Amino acid sequence: MVTREKSEHVRQQIIKAADQLFYQKGYNLCSFTDIATVSKIPRGNLNYHFKTKDEVLIAVIHHRVDETQQMLQSWEKEFKTPLERLQRYAQIPTKVKDEVIHYGCPMGTLNMELGKGQQALQNITKAQFEVFERWIKEQFQTMGCSKNASALTMHLLVWTQGIAAMAYIHQDTRLIQREVKSINNWLASLSS
Amino acid sequence: MVTREKSEHVRQQIIKAADQLFYQKGYNLCSFTDIATVSKIPRGNLNYHFKTKDEVLIAVIHHRVDETQQMLQSWEKEFKTPLERLQRYAQIPTKVKDEVIHYGCPMGTLNMELGKGQQALQNITKAQFEVFERWIKEQFQTMGCSKNASALTMHLLVWTQGIAAMAYIHQDTRLIQREVKSINNWLASLSS
Repeated sequence: MVTREKSEHVRQQIIKAADQLFYQKGYNLCSFTDIATVSKIPRGNLNYHFKTKDEVLIAVIHHRVDETQQMLQSWEKEFKTPLERLQRYAQIPTKVKDEVIHYGCPMGTLNMELGKGQQALQNITKAQFEVFERWIKEQFQTMGCSKNASALTMHLLVWTQGIAAMAYIHQDTRLIQREVKSINNWLASLSS
Repeated sequence: MVTREKSEHVRQQIIKAADQLFYQKGYNLCSFTDIATVSKIPRGNLNYHFKTKDEVLIAVIHHRVDETQQMLQSWEKEFKTPLERLQRYAQIPTKVKDEVIHYGCPMGTLNMELGKGQQALQNITKAQFEVFERWIKEQFQTMGCSKNASALTMHLLVWTQGIAAMAYIHQDTRLIQREVKSINNWLASLSS
């Protein structure tokens, strides 16, 4: 039992290191050696857990989806109304602005990198978007926007992805603050 | 003279092949061998023109900036009002929708890829955005929005980058049409 727990602990260490590296270096420029170095797990042990980098990617996406689901559940407890919940979602780029201006959106940049000729891997990474999209759509529906909840969900994602892209390209945190304020106003106008 | 012209013709062939490859495969996954294959220029001749892939990137960005400037000048002749010109800009994702859903925005995806640890190269690619940004800002100023022309310019870029990102992630051309229609309405509301 102790051994199994230790093995799972090692696996989590690898996943967390790979998550950080895929975000900061990109998937294709990140090597097994990089993952071994950052996770401080010997190369042989790394290969015991993951045979290929694609397997690491799948584990990283599962990890990200789990974390997102936990975050969304905590927001449901913390915020009573769908407006407050959607406004909390829109705050993401503000909360992680230093990461965004250096590395962009972790979901968006990974998807865009893999979309160029690595469609099978891109499809795996889409799960990150889908968990947000389902939740956002539910909030719009609860807010009374059932008729066009899908289109509103996509518009909100277009907006936040665009913010992450332009803030990253120009290393501009003020752009984030200005645009997030506009999203908040737009959401409030839909709710009233 | 004939030799110099031929040499320039070869150079342009290389640049066009690299432009396409950087867009469709990404910068880091594109090799000199790929460029030689697509351009049909022998490897030795390729190396005569460009010593490194970074040099090819610089030439590709110059080429893209030149093409954009010519396009913007032609729009100025074709469209009389700043509103029509800005609405033509917003049409870009619609006009190249098949490319967008397969490879994203050529400017955005290249910038995002290089931003992760290759800042010197990312800075070079920023010139693509700057040529659009200057022109868009001028149109907003002419339209009577001098006071907040910079913020409006950034908002329009946030929107179009977000469209390209989400349409690419979901391979969704209807999203492009819907969002571009909203941009047109927004621009018209600013002009009236």
